[in-house]
Amino acid sequence: MKKIEEFLESISFDKRLYKYDIQGSIAHAKMLTKCKIITDSEGKRIVKALKEIEKEIKTGKFKFNLSLEDIHTHIEKRLIEKIGDIGAKLHTARSRNDQVSLDMRLFLRDEIKEIAKLIRNLQKSILKVAERNIDAIMPGYTHLQHAQPILFSHWIMTYFFMLDRDWERLLNTFDRVNVSPLGAAALAGTSYPTDREYTARLLDFSKVVQSSMDAVSDRDFIIEFLADASLIMMHLSRLSEELILFSSKEFGFIELADPFTTGSSIMPQKRNPDVCELIRGKTGRVYGNLMSLLTTMKSLPLAYNRDMQEDKIPLFGTVDTLKGSLSLYAKMLDTVKIDKKKMLASLEGDFSMATDLADYLVRKGLPFRKAHQIVSKLVKETIKKKKDLDDLTLKEFKTYSKLFGRDVFDTIKVKAGIAARKSLGGTAKESVKRLIAQGKEIVRKA
Amino acid sequence: MKKIEEFLESISFDKRLYKYDIQGSIAHAKMLTKCKIITDSEGKRIVKALKEIEKEIKTGKFKFNLSLEDIHTHIEKRLIEKIGDIGAKLHTARSRNDQVSLDMRLFLRDEIKEIAKLIRNLQKSILKVAERNIDAIMPGYTHLQHAQPILFSHWIMTYFFMLDRDWERLLNTFDRVNVSPLGAAALAGTSYPTDREYTARLLDFSKVVQSSMDAVSDRDFIIEFLADASLIMMHLSRLSEELILFSSKEFGFIELADPFTTGSSIMPQKRNPDVCELIRGKTGRVYGNLMSLLTTMKSLPLAYNRDMQEDKIPLFGTVDTLKGSLSLYAKMLDTVKIDKKKMLASLEGDFSMATDLADYLVRKGLPFRKAHQIVSKLVKETIKKKKDLDDLTLKEFKTYSKLFGRDVFDTIKVKAGIAARKSLGGTAKESVKRLIAQGKEIVRKA
Amino acid sequence: MKKIEEFLESISFDKRLYKYDIQGSIAHAKMLTKCKIITDSEGKRIVKALKEIEKEIKTGKFKFNLSLEDIHTHIEKRLIEKIGDIGAKLHTARSRNDQVSLDMRLFLRDEIKEIAKLIRNLQKSILKVAERNIDAIMPGYTHLQHAQPILFSHWIMTYFFMLDRDWERLLNTFDRVNVSPLGAAALAGTSYPTDREYTARLLDFSKVVQSSMDAVSDRDFIIEFLADASLIMMHLSRLSEELILFSSKEFGFIELADPFTTGSSIMPQKRNPDVCELIRGKTGRVYGNLMSLLTTMKSLPLAYNRDMQEDKIPLFGTVDTLKGSLSLYAKMLDTVKIDKKKMLASLEGDFSMATDLADYLVRKGLPFRKAHQIVSKLVKETIKKKKDLDDLTLKEFKTYSKLFGRDVFDTIKVKAGIAARKSLGGTAKESVKRLIAQGKEIVRKA
Amino acid sequence: MKKIEEFLESISFDKRLYKYDIQGSIAHAKMLTKCKIITDSEGKRIVKALKEIEKEIKTGKFKFNLSLEDIHTHIEKRLIEKIGDIGAKLHTARSRNDQVSLDMRLFLRDEIKEIAKLIRNLQKSILKVAERNIDAIMPGYTHLQHAQPILFSHWIMTYFFMLDRDWERLLNTFDRVNVSPLGAAALAGTSYPTDREYTARLLDFSKVVQSSMDAVSDRDFIIEFLADASLIMMHLSRLSEELILFSSKEFGFIELADPFTTGSSIMPQKRNPDVCELIRGKTGRVYGNLMSLLTTMKSLPLAYNRDMQEDKIPLFGTVDTLKGSLSLYAKMLDTVKIDKKKMLASLEGDFSMATDLADYLVRKGLPFRKAHQIVSKLVKETIKKKKDLDDLTLKEFKTYSKLFGRDVFDTIKVKAGIAARKSLGGTAKESVKRLIAQGKEIVRKA
Repeated sequence: MKKIEEFLESISFDKRLYKYDIQGSIAHAKMLTKCKIITDSEGKRIVKALKEIEKEIKTGKFKFNLSLEDIHTHIEKRLIEKIGDIGAKLHTARSRNDQVSLDMRLFLRDEIKEIAKLIRNLQKSILKVAERNIDAIMPGYTHLQHAQPILFSHWIMTYFFMLDRDWERLLNTFDRVNVSPLGAAALAGTSYPTDREYTARLLDFSKVVQSSMDAVSDRDFIIEFLADASLIMMHLSRLSEELILFSSKEFGFIELADPFTTGSSIMPQKRNPDVCELIRGKTGRVYGNLMSLLTTMKSLPLAYNRDMQEDKIPLFGTVDTLKGSLSLYAKMLDTVKIDKKKMLASLEGDFSMATDLADYLVRKGLPFRKAHQIVSKLVKETIKKKKDLDDLTLKEFKTYSKLFGRDVFDTIKVKAGIAARKSLGGTAKESVKRLIAQGKEIVRKA
Repeated sequence: MKKIEEFLESISFDKRLYKYDIQGSIAHAKMLTKCKIITDSEGKRIVKALKEIEKEIKTGKFKFNLSLEDIHTHIEKRLIEKIGDIGAKLHTARSRNDQVSLDMRLFLRDEIKEIAKLIRNLQKSILKVAERNIDAIMPGYTHLQHAQPILFSHWIMTYFFMLDRDWERLLNTFDRVNVSPLGAAALAGTSYPTDREYTARLLDFSKVVQSSMDAVSDRDFIIEFLADASLIMMHLSRLSEELILFSSKEFGFIELADPFTTGSSIMPQKRNPDVCELIRGKTGRVYGNLMSLLTTMKSLPLAYNRDMQEDKIPLFGTVDTLKGSLSLYAKMLDTVKIDKKKMLASLEGDFSMATDLADYLVRKGLPFRKAHQIVSKLVKETIKKKKDLDDLTLKEFKTYSKLFGRDVFDTIKVKAGIAARKSLGGTAKESVKRLIAQGKEIVRKA
Repeated sequence: MKKIEEFLESISFDKRLYKYDIQGSIAHAKMLTKCKIITDSEGKRIVKALKEIEKEIKTGKFKFNLSLEDIHTHIEKRLIEKIGDIGAKLHTARSRNDQVSLDMRLFLRDEIKEIAKLIRNLQKSILKVAERNIDAIMPGYTHLQHAQPILFSHWIMTYFFMLDRDWERLLNTFDRVNVSPLGAAALAGTSYPTDREYTARLLDFSKVVQSSMDAVSDRDFIIEFLADASLIMMHLSRLSEELILFSSKEFGFIELADPFTTGSSIMPQKRNPDVCELIRGKTGRVYGNLMSLLTTMKSLPLAYNRDMQEDKIPLFGTVDTLKGSLSLYAKMLDTVKIDKKKMLASLEGDFSMATDLADYLVRKGLPFRKAHQIVSKLVKETIKKKKDLDDLTLKEFKTYSKLFGRDVFDTIKVKAGIAARKSLGGTAKESVKRLIAQGKEIVRKA
Repeated sequence: MKKIEEFLESISFDKRLYKYDIQGSIAHAKMLTKCKIITDSEGKRIVKALKEIEKEIKTGKFKFNLSLEDIHTHIEKRLIEKIGDIGAKLHTARSRNDQVSLDMRLFLRDEIKEIAKLIRNLQKSILKVAERNIDAIMPGYTHLQHAQPILFSHWIMTYFFMLDRDWERLLNTFDRVNVSPLGAAALAGTSYPTDREYTARLLDFSKVVQSSMDAVSDRDFIIEFLADASLIMMHLSRLSEELILFSSKEFGFIELADPFTTGSSIMPQKRNPDVCELIRGKTGRVYGNLMSLLTTMKSLPLAYNRDMQEDKIPLFGTVDTLKGSLSLYAKMLDTVKIDKKKMLASLEGDFSMATDLADYLVRKGLPFRKAHQIVSKLVKETIKKKKDLDDLTLKEFKTYSKLFGRDVFDTIKVKAGIAARKSLGGTAKESVKRLIAQGKEIVRKA
């Protein structure tokens, strides 16, 4: 029945695994040769034919056919077409079950390496934009309300460290992906005298999946990657949200370069941050992919079940989304323009120096809580008078506390507030420079 | 307005953090003393009072009050009640934002250690049940259809290795939890001459969160744990599904001990596997918790936002579910009974030795694919005759291939099939024993 | 084993169903009487005792006990304590399986009614704030960029209609909740001559669940409600996001009343929109609850399985979140203050009248696309000159097109632009008034 | 930049909307004509050209181009190519924002109708298989343990009623999809004298979206459909789980027809239920799609944001999955074979008649609870003696209660037990026949 074939087929999406399928088959053939399960010349003919098939696919000469279900069948069938009975020996001592897990691991291994590189690239772009704008001052927000002035470079470096955790997590995941299932056969191992560690070495795996049952029934490595990916997208969604805010007319802190925005024919001044929005939107898709495979694997009895074919679309979609989002982001940050004046101006009249004023009184000897009470009263009444801290005279300050001296005027300067926060990881320029230096060390290593 | 208070409060659930809040505050007080931000005697009085408060809470003498919002406020207020202005100094150079992240990390650190231990315990129970039943034979399933005979010990050891990945993942996560945010203050660091590395050492953290902005806006460590937890529950849901199946009348492979089943007053023979079912059901809750926090954190601008209070219920619920599920599971496996006869009997007439028959012919020199064709024909016709492989005579075998000899009768014995799969991780007793030995080595180390 | 009991118990959370459990039991007792399965006097004694138990629970005199598993057992046990063997007859012709489904439906029925009312209340608050500020002008955004000026009342009425769909959906769901499962017994119905339609009538159900198997294995009605709830929270998250934005210093469009914001002791001017943030954050929890039950029910064989006990926590949590969020929202909108001046001022220099300028040329006879080209050029060059549309002279306009006349100055007034958009549902005052009138009609009816 | 274009494009997947885009554009052109915004002959030329374009696409002559972003641009550009400036007038008084919402609604409207039909077809298949096997007896399960004997037809009819709720829900959703957003323009309506109700009528919508802001910022109708779809898949996952169980060797209740199973070359007897498994697996994908769009829409400010482009892939994927799953399921049930003997045989020795035995004693006058105690004792002791209920003599029965008479032997017959459960919706043949009759009435109507 045609319709059932169509429903079951995976060739329309798993053909992108062809390179890995051939790579795995070559290793398997070499192992069969080494273990004398096939002869030397058989092994060589298989390897040669597989390489030819790879070329056929790469150059678009290979014919795909929906009725041949998946990429494994396509390649094996072509192999037999080419070299007959010898080709039919390739599948000795393995099964579709270990083969598909192998292909997925080989694929994901490459993609994780690529994604890790893209993360490092984005981190480098962050370092550059932080350094370029090391002195730019902006409001620091909590609850989207002005809390304390901070350095723009401090703000953007936060994302550097988020991404660094992402990078670490990917590397942890890599270790669990980089394990060879080949040779597990259908589920119970095989009676042929195989050498699973040899194929693992040939394919650059760090070890083999110990239990053959585990090898064919496990998709943890994909789910774990999807969870890593969800965190990456969550981080990018936060950055996107902020870039969209910051490039709104009301904030006006940044301007994204033309290629990353779209306008409308009628409103050429409009700079819609489409790339940021789309990345923020795609966060949903990646979360959905994670939920998808978690659901699929829930309650599945051992060992292989056809449900597990549903691992591919979510994985492929996630890989593509991540790679696109990360690489565009690096370019976007490389070209973003900062409006330092607007950022600084937005701090006017926001009383975000109140904390510093209280700390001033504490340093003059007042207990912490008392200092807070005094400053709170001062701020409230100043707001009522429609004034800013800068507008107050020393006399006015002194009506709140005798401890106020002429040096209070230095204290309430935004730059002073920033410079004062020299604690480890704080917003003082020297602290941020330390963060940037650490960052450079990190990206240098990998 | 009463209702708003109720909506915003977290004390009803965050009071379970009290121990960690006090632990963190003591470290903070000691740092303030060391850095001469408060005096020695102030520091000592604060620490003493905090320890008294801990005792008050532990012994149930502490009064909680919904209008005091959260555990941090409760403890600070009580501190000031006890020692006045000195107590008010404790909050110098920190903020609720770094404090709450600290408490959550201290809490989660302990819980991860506990959960890791429970995983090891469950792994030990698996090793025991595997060893106790090392020889028991059962059908190996793919697609819930009999594929090849396997050892029961091989089957259950699959879960050992799943759990081992869970354990590893938890340890990776632990490294990212075990980092001190204390001293980040509201978001920008502080102007007091603090020593963040000192508090980190006091609290046994391996390092400090570098950026103060990152310290207060990050909840990755919780999400990562929830993802780990989802994988653990997914594994337990698979095992539960199989135990439920295996204890059905139709399978009848195992019998769960009385305390893990419930009957009905009218059907005393009924052994409902309620514990397995509930654990399988709770998988949904843990997945939901993961999705919950991923959603909450999506698109949140820096730094702290009140949305982040929603990290607690999902985390606490997940921790409780995991601990309950893992510890009950260990006991359940310790007491499960295996019906070896039924497991073996179920293999009758299932032709699960067909693969071995084909391998036999290959060993006799037939090409792999040809061997498959012959056996396929043989099996089909034998089924049509309503016979089993055992019922065939040598003469009958020979009508399919001259290569069949008297030794074919040994080949098609279930035990022979199992013994033959000696490949690394295969189902042969010696392979499974190797898996068990590895397992013992693993649990011995940690 | 104590621990297993604790793991399996539901009394700690299902006791909130007590009212419904008793209500259902009374109906069941009356049916047993009517159908002569128990005697009249037995029926009366049961009903009387059940009412006493209800009172005991309501007044806090009832003793709960973790080892008695659930609310059904508690009540039945107490009934037997009170009236002996007669009490033991209550459970004739029913089972825990239909009873728990009944309780959940009775509970949810009441809660949906309550939530529907709260939606209507919030819609009324929207109508009021829209009417109060009918003329206030603000920027209309797409991509968070100024697109065209709109009326504030137009903007807020969008949420009216979102909520109206929510209300409709809840009512659709209600129809599927409001169906009686009582009398399905364990799964197969009963051999007693019961009258399921009689109990359905007594309990005000619109019909009975037809199949007894369906009655005990279905949790669709809860999942459907959780999906409705997710959409409601999604809507509130969008409104919250906008209110948070609009109350930021940069926008400054609105001011939330004091009780809905929190400050900090040191920064009294800070108005953190905590209620909005928490509601936005709780969206995650409700989504998670939906995902939780969907996962739990996936692949469950018929009929009842213990997994289904996991329906309660997600449902109860969702109901509480919805009710809290909706009722606080109504009050928040009743007290919000609009800064009309700031909203209007933000339109300055944003060229959001460009569309109107093009439409002007089209009305003067220019083809649509040509008009767009001209206005695009005009806007670009005006921006380059750092001017606004208002700054242009007629002569300057005419350099772009001879068609510009003196009336162009009226066209580019913000008010004119708004007034012009009279299309059905557009932003012209008369259109918005029509929306408000429709809204009033809608809330009047229900 | 090529890469950005690729990232932003949607033409690779939204081209499947072409028919609806053209349908909507034709209606819009007719409205512009009617309202004299364009001339009669302009209107006619536009409509004619649009129909030609439709043909070009249908016949594969149309050239798609990744750099032209989406289907709307493709069609408009081609229109202008064909008829120049007149074509450029089509976009008057509308925008991409209302256009894309329109296309999605037109698409989904058709697909819901199609899916509703497929549900009805599957329901018909259920009715047929129920009628064909009206008398077949099988164990009724709770907790996957035998509870009471039921009719196979009773069991399968449960799914009929689940699907009926699905059908109803889809129809409720349809009402909210079937509303016209056309004419909302970018977000604020338009100054042209349009007639939105006219286009709604032309396109067979039941009403128009009242608020223009709502029209362009709403994706509820898609999320609601995805929630409906998740419930449908949940139901199919339950049925799949049961069919997989029932076709296992251990159960052996059913046999799926060849095209719905796959074997392996070596094990021709293996009947892997791949279609059931894949449908069960795809449940994850549909859940993921729901979660995906819920996440994407969370916290989005009004009105249109580019994030919303992410509605398409999840919707299209869900529609395809649903249609494939539902139509294959109908065929699968039409061809499934029931092994009545095995189902009946599996009831042997399961004591699933215990309930009937207790009911017998109650009818003889014993109080319910006492009857239960006696039967419980009887069953326990009979199991201990390794006997079945059938093996007991009247004398033996009488040792438990004098009330046992000769008629007890009729009571404990499986068929008697089934026949006795005549309550509404119960498992007695007459009750099930009533369910089937209701079912026929339901599918007859729609």
